[in-house]
Amino acid sequence: MNKVLVLGAGQLARMMELAGTPLNLDVKAFDVRSDKVVSPIYPDRIYGDLQQGIANADVITAEFEHVAHDVLAECEQSGKLFPTSEAIKIGGDRRLEKALLESCCAANAKHHFIKNKNDFNKALEVLSLPIIFKTALEGYDGKGQWRLKTAADAESTWQEMADFLASAKETQGIVAEQMVPFDRELSLVGVRRVNGDVAVYPLTENHHTNGILSVSLAAPVDNNLQNQAGTVFKALSDKLGYVGVLAIEFFQVGEQLLVNEIAPRVHNSGHWTQQGADTCQFENHLRAICDLPLGSTELVRPTAMINIIGEDAVPNEVLAVPSVTMHWYNKGKRAGRKMGHINVSGENEQQLAERLQQLAGILCKHAFPDLTDFAYAYINNLKTK
Amino acid sequence: MNKVLVLGAGQLARMMELAGTPLNLDVKAFDVRSDKVVSPIYPDRIYGDLQQGIANADVITAEFEHVAHDVLAECEQSGKLFPTSEAIKIGGDRRLEKALLESCCAANAKHHFIKNKNDFNKALEVLSLPIIFKTALEGYDGKGQWRLKTAADAESTWQEMADFLASAKETQGIVAEQMVPFDRELSLVGVRRVNGDVAVYPLTENHHTNGILSVSLAAPVDNNLQNQAGTVFKALSDKLGYVGVLAIEFFQVGEQLLVNEIAPRVHNSGHWTQQGADTCQFENHLRAICDLPLGSTELVRPTAMINIIGEDAVPNEVLAVPSVTMHWYNKGKRAGRKMGHINVSGENEQQLAERLQQLAGILCKHAFPDLTDFAYAYINNLKTK
Repeated sequence: MNKVLVLGAGQLARMMELAGTPLNLDVKAFDVRSDKVVSPIYPDRIYGDLQQGIANADVITAEFEHVAHDVLAECEQSGKLFPTSEAIKIGGDRRLEKALLESCCAANAKHHFIKNKNDFNKALEVLSLPIIFKTALEGYDGKGQWRLKTAADAESTWQEMADFLASAKETQGIVAEQMVPFDRELSLVGVRRVNGDVAVYPLTENHHTNGILSVSLAAPVDNNLQNQAGTVFKALSDKLGYVGVLAIEFFQVGEQLLVNEIAPRVHNSGHWTQQGADTCQFENHLRAICDLPLGSTELVRPTAMINIIGEDAVPNEVLAVPSVTMHWYNKGKRAGRKMGHINVSGENEQQLAERLQQLAGILCKHAFPDLTDFAYAYINNLKTK
Repeated sequence: MNKVLVLGAGQLARMMELAGTPLNLDVKAFDVRSDKVVSPIYPDRIYGDLQQGIANADVITAEFEHVAHDVLAECEQSGKLFPTSEAIKIGGDRRLEKALLESCCAANAKHHFIKNKNDFNKALEVLSLPIIFKTALEGYDGKGQWRLKTAADAESTWQEMADFLASAKETQGIVAEQMVPFDRELSLVGVRRVNGDVAVYPLTENHHTNGILSVSLAAPVDNNLQNQAGTVFKALSDKLGYVGVLAIEFFQVGEQLLVNEIAPRVHNSGHWTQQGADTCQFENHLRAICDLPLGSTELVRPTAMINIIGEDAVPNEVLAVPSVTMHWYNKGKRAGRKMGHINVSGENEQQLAERLQQLAGILCKHAFPDLTDFAYAYINNLKTK
């Protein structure tokens, strides 16, 4: 039996344990808040500290990219960490990420790094408005971002960022990016094994509400886009000698994909794979880090994932919609917190769209503000196909 | 959150916990060997004794039908037991089972109850050879059975049974059944909610090796047979006021289905539903006993289940066959013991049959003696369809 230690004990580790248990994998997690190793399903069950966790594990992985660097170093030293600490760190630093994209010739938005006013002025020169500024470290779900639309606001925007940088740690920085007038946000979740085997899921269409992913949609996808994304995945994951699941977020601009960011882990936009794909992303990540053959990533049925944010219950009628599977994370209720998700599939896209409309009719408009519009637009879009 | 107590802490309870956790159900199990309540996933984690388990639970159910009657009585008294103790007991006593079938006019093999030599002689009169004799209590997986093919062997067969009855408890008995020259063994897994809602999965074709289920196959099925089975399910489950998953095993004789036996629980022949159906049997059982809407039981893809018996490992190459999902039970290795199962699906039956052939080529012939023949026959059968 392979023993897996996950750095981070949130929902991603929990879903790894649920996927790994039938595979005879023993999945435990290092809770960075309590500094204890726990069962992600039974977080009050403690299995010692980090050193014991490292010693007991056959392989170590991470559920998030903002792991403290000393923890990563300790894990890497054991020779059990997959992916490498380098890959994990890249996911946690937009400057490293941009450098990786450049080195792989992966198309991405034009950008400039900022530490001081000079850099800021230079960014305004080399990029054209509108510009989005993102913190290099620790930004997620739309947090730590500033948007500059008109030159008149440049000074006040800089002042906000200057205040932020002054109070941030020395290693923090800001990445200025040319805002891209994109048509859609798509992501590719894929997996790579030590021997270089790669498998990618179909591109997923993502919709955000207030900067947080609200709906992902996996359906048959245009070959050209899928091939572009697959090529980028292969280049990046080969360059990193990556092992495990890696997610790449793209902006689609016309027929071209620009990389927005990468996440060196299982990803929210891949949760649909639990019901919609041959092998789910959690199992494939575990297979890869345990050096087992990768599972097929084929789409079984068009499937959508709806995030449950800030709510700890939904009406029971949701379960009466065919092909609905609930995934609760057993987390305490808090506004803006990802509490669970709903997967729903259809035999075809038409059926899936109708089920999404049914769900939109049942779920509270306040908690799922954009679902009705999304379902409506999806049905209309299918009519014109 | 609904708290579920399962009587029995084996693989069925384990798969209920795995299916219930994402649904926010807290599933614990009463281990009848240790008399303790445990987590089926973490069986060394103890949550008190039966009385505490009953007090903590919102609902109680069973993973096997041979639960001690005093335990059933105690659970029933709490008002939390689903299905009823009557239904569970029927599954554990072939005499009660036969009486139920007769009361519902469900076609089944001609039979006679035996306690003594006179009954035995009468059975030989009213039934014609060959006859199969089965213990009324505690028989499973082909154990506790005698076959009588020629009249010359009657005396020696009776002697064996007489010895058995003499050493058995007073309540034990034998049921003599006319052996049926059946074409196939099929089973129907279905689920019923308190309000009478019923949903049944497609009929599953079952193959046994040495009396133990080795392969189940779920594929599109003849409407006439499916309707017959559904009618029997409705009659039996309504009669029992059944709540939860109930499995019915049938003999197919020409175009007719005869009930072989019933199992008042999730069933080995329904394990394919974890990958092949919209909602798996474990989740549907939990939904039913927690009075949640039933999930769709539709076949998503043709799917087969292969039991792993007496082995605690299979070659890793198994995982390289597309659409293969492993389900290990974390049990100690023992000859003849159900240790896990493999689910494999295909877009269509042809693809499924090819994948079964691939698996037959990888899995050890000694541990899976009939798989090659099964896959070969399946492919040939598809050619003549």
